[in-house]
Amino acid sequence: MATGHTDPQRRERILAATLDHIAAEGVAGVSHRKIAARAGVPLGSMTYHFTGIDDLLREAFTRFADHIVTVFDQHLDGVVGPEQAREAIVDLVHAISDGPQRDLVLTQELYTLAARRPEYRALTRTWMARSRHLLERHFDAGTARQLDALIEGLTLHRALDPEPHAREVTSEAIRRITSTTATA
Amino acid sequence: MATGHTDPQRRERILAATLDHIAAEGVAGVSHRKIAARAGVPLGSMTYHFTGIDDLLREAFTRFADHIVTVFDQHLDGVVGPEQAREAIVDLVHAISDGPQRDLVLTQELYTLAARRPEYRALTRTWMARSRHLLERHFDAGTARQLDALIEGLTLHRALDPEPHAREVTSEAIRRITSTTATA
Repeated sequence: MATGHTDPQRRERILAATLDHIAAEGVAGVSHRKIAARAGVPLGSMTYHFTGIDDLLREAFTRFADHIVTVFDQHLDGVVGPEQAREAIVDLVHAISDGPQRDLVLTQELYTLAARRPEYRALTRTWMARSRHLLERHFDAGTARQLDALIEGLTLHRALDPEPHAREVTSEAIRRITSTTATA
Repeated sequence: MATGHTDPQRRERILAATLDHIAAEGVAGVSHRKIAARAGVPLGSMTYHFTGIDDLLREAFTRFADHIVTVFDQHLDGVVGPEQAREAIVDLVHAISDGPQRDLVLTQELYTLAARRPEYRALTRTWMARSRHLLERHFDAGTARQLDALIEGLTLHRALDPEPHAREVTSEAIRRITSTTATA
């Protein structure tokens, strides 16, 4: 068969092209025609591999979440004890917030989509659950949930601030939120 | 004069229409023609009141940031002492994250714009500085910065989670981050 429909790399190429397109122009501009052109596949491949634009967006953003969860995982891999975990998380916040603009844009595009269309919140929910699960290797479930929200806020604020806060601020915030013996 | 160019309400009407348009369709779809139609003003009003789309977006998002800073301010108004401030901030996080979808969408649209185009980060920076300033009435500057990031993360995670976390989680996180005597 010469159609290439069953070529698994074609599906991956379409998903990569979708993320490229969203990073460059936003979710609003995604169409079968534009993505097929960017991926260099025939238009018919789009409907063969995906049931529609929603399916395409869901699969593409799932790939992207996999990538960020892997970054999380790599930072926490091999870490022993809460003190090493805190240091690793400070590194993670700074790596992401100083990292590729593409990742920042794709994260915000997903959040905007989920903000506008609640049916996409299954994606953000799953992503949050995966991050928390990794944090729960080192902290209790309640702390992991608070810590995950703090990581989100610190990362976003550093990324969107032309004069991002210093490492000491991140470090102190992580220390406080993971302190289960705090007294107000 | 019948042009209405100097009518200050016309400028405000254009800004309100711009935010309505962004909430409904996103920043990507903003054009002079669409906004003029939505605001019910002649096309010439757009270039009279704004130097271009960037000026229009900046002014519109500044109005929106004013609105959210006012919500912050109202929650913290009349609060006495750190314990009352903590309670007020828990209320604030839940009010925003349970609040109008429009505010959530507009916030994410601004962040996406600032993620993609760093020249818009002056807006996010000013907004963050104003929030921190309000928090500094009740907490030291370092705590206010950490707390502002935590509020961002808790609000976003609650808003994008189909099963948002309970008040106790928010309350405990706020307590920990504002505890300056924490020991890890």
